[in-house]
Amino acid sequence: MQTLLKGINQEVIISPEHPTAIIGERINPTGRKVFSAELEAGDLSRIARDAQAQVDAGAVILDVNVGAARVDEVQMLPEAVRIVQDTVDVPISIDSSNPEALKAALKVYKGRALINSVNGEKERLTQVLPLVAEYGAAVIALCMGDDGIPETAEQRLAIAQNILEAAQAVGVPPEDILFDPLAMTISVNHRAAQVTIDTAHAIRGELGTNMTIGASNTSHGMPDRQLLNTVFLAGFIQAGVNAPICNPLTNTLAVRAIDLMQGLDEWGMRYIQTYRKLQASQS
Amino acid sequence: MQTLLKGINQEVIISPEHPTAIIGERINPTGRKVFSAELEAGDLSRIARDAQAQVDAGAVILDVNVGAARVDEVQMLPEAVRIVQDTVDVPISIDSSNPEALKAALKVYKGRALINSVNGEKERLTQVLPLVAEYGAAVIALCMGDDGIPETAEQRLAIAQNILEAAQAVGVPPEDILFDPLAMTISVNHRAAQVTIDTAHAIRGELGTNMTIGASNTSHGMPDRQLLNTVFLAGFIQAGVNAPICNPLTNTLAVRAIDLMQGLDEWGMRYIQTYRKLQASQS
Repeated sequence: MQTLLKGINQEVIISPEHPTAIIGERINPTGRKVFSAELEAGDLSRIARDAQAQVDAGAVILDVNVGAARVDEVQMLPEAVRIVQDTVDVPISIDSSNPEALKAALKVYKGRALINSVNGEKERLTQVLPLVAEYGAAVIALCMGDDGIPETAEQRLAIAQNILEAAQAVGVPPEDILFDPLAMTISVNHRAAQVTIDTAHAIRGELGTNMTIGASNTSHGMPDRQLLNTVFLAGFIQAGVNAPICNPLTNTLAVRAIDLMQGLDEWGMRYIQTYRKLQASQS
Repeated sequence: MQTLLKGINQEVIISPEHPTAIIGERINPTGRKVFSAELEAGDLSRIARDAQAQVDAGAVILDVNVGAARVDEVQMLPEAVRIVQDTVDVPISIDSSNPEALKAALKVYKGRALINSVNGEKERLTQVLPLVAEYGAAVIALCMGDDGIPETAEQRLAIAQNILEAAQAVGVPPEDILFDPLAMTISVNHRAAQVTIDTAHAIRGELGTNMTIGASNTSHGMPDRQLLNTVFLAGFIQAGVNAPICNPLTNTLAVRAIDLMQGLDEWGMRYIQTYRKLQASQS
């Protein structure tokens, strides 16, 4: 199954046969105080820099989220999308909890966007799926519903199936959905990552769709998060996640190593090139 | 399925429900010029140091191999086993291509040893399996046969099935066999690790036995071998390998991270303890 995204003169295909597609997570005020304050003051200057740096580091899609406390996303999200598309050619994952902001950003977006996100909540499905259909976009679908985040892989799969049916009812095909099996924090629940892996296996086996994941939070509160993120990315990607949302500045070489392990990197050329580029940028 | 090994006053159970059992690889002259020269000169002083260091770093089984060029293994292997058992309590993986040396070492070994190794070659099966039965040991079985190392997972599984039958014919049950799905060098064949993973999945699914692997060579010839070894260990262990042979001085924290990912480390206590110990030893 292939998910096609388009930026300006640049297409990205997400599929099990393609190299893992890194969605750069950095353009997001969550946990970034300085960026938050800048957005609240109407200063968007960091966005172009972050876009370029992430693409240089190996991101092939960029998530764009401007959801800080005192920000009018309906006004600012399209502006941020425009800045990113003026800077780099890669497709964008338009990220907001506000459907009006999503719509405003989709109006200015050039190409075939990814919408981040829908989930199994009835209200959210009703608000977001029509936008996906109307703008011919693809969408990230979180495996959670009106009762929150289920504890078991079976329950998360059931929500994914519901979302799949609701999407098909409005004309959005399975290949345009990236399910997120949800990675919770391991320091809170030591079974969290295994549930994510089981969910990913179930989705890959039962639905066959492509998948994303927000992998970074899993290691929160633990020492040597870099090692944990590498190991968890290996586990999630091996279970079928092929478009993780992560920080390309710190995780690209690990993702290339995982692709090499999966036989997706002939002669290891992408891994070796990434390594050399990283060495050059650090020297 | 549980594989039970015994050292002096110390038992190790290998099973999918237990933490991954690290078999320390260091007591082996392959690729260690100084150690090779010492063994050839009859100097075994390094063995006790290497045994202690590996157990301190997290190994729960130690591989012992003295196969240097001008070494009489029949004489030296039992001596090395005695030194290791005088130093640490953990079980030993007695490692030699010489069946006479294996036998001599088994005679002096106290406990329930692991024999490294048998494979699908008729001669080797005939030589080694009777020793496994006679000494009530467990055995590592490499998934290769009279025609060398097969390229596909199906062929490697077929060899594993043959070995399993030959073992049962002499009274060695499946739980006393650790299959090695074989990790070849990725810089020579970029599909090598995926074949290993497919083989491990097939063995776990079809035979249900425990597994080992010599993981370190996979990254040979590639940059950032530490990262690759971490990623490959994650892939192999997730596919069912639960007693990898590796260097505990550099890989234990990664293995604990993988166990944490697999939900095998309540509250992440083993991971955090390993991290703290590593910090303390480096400061």
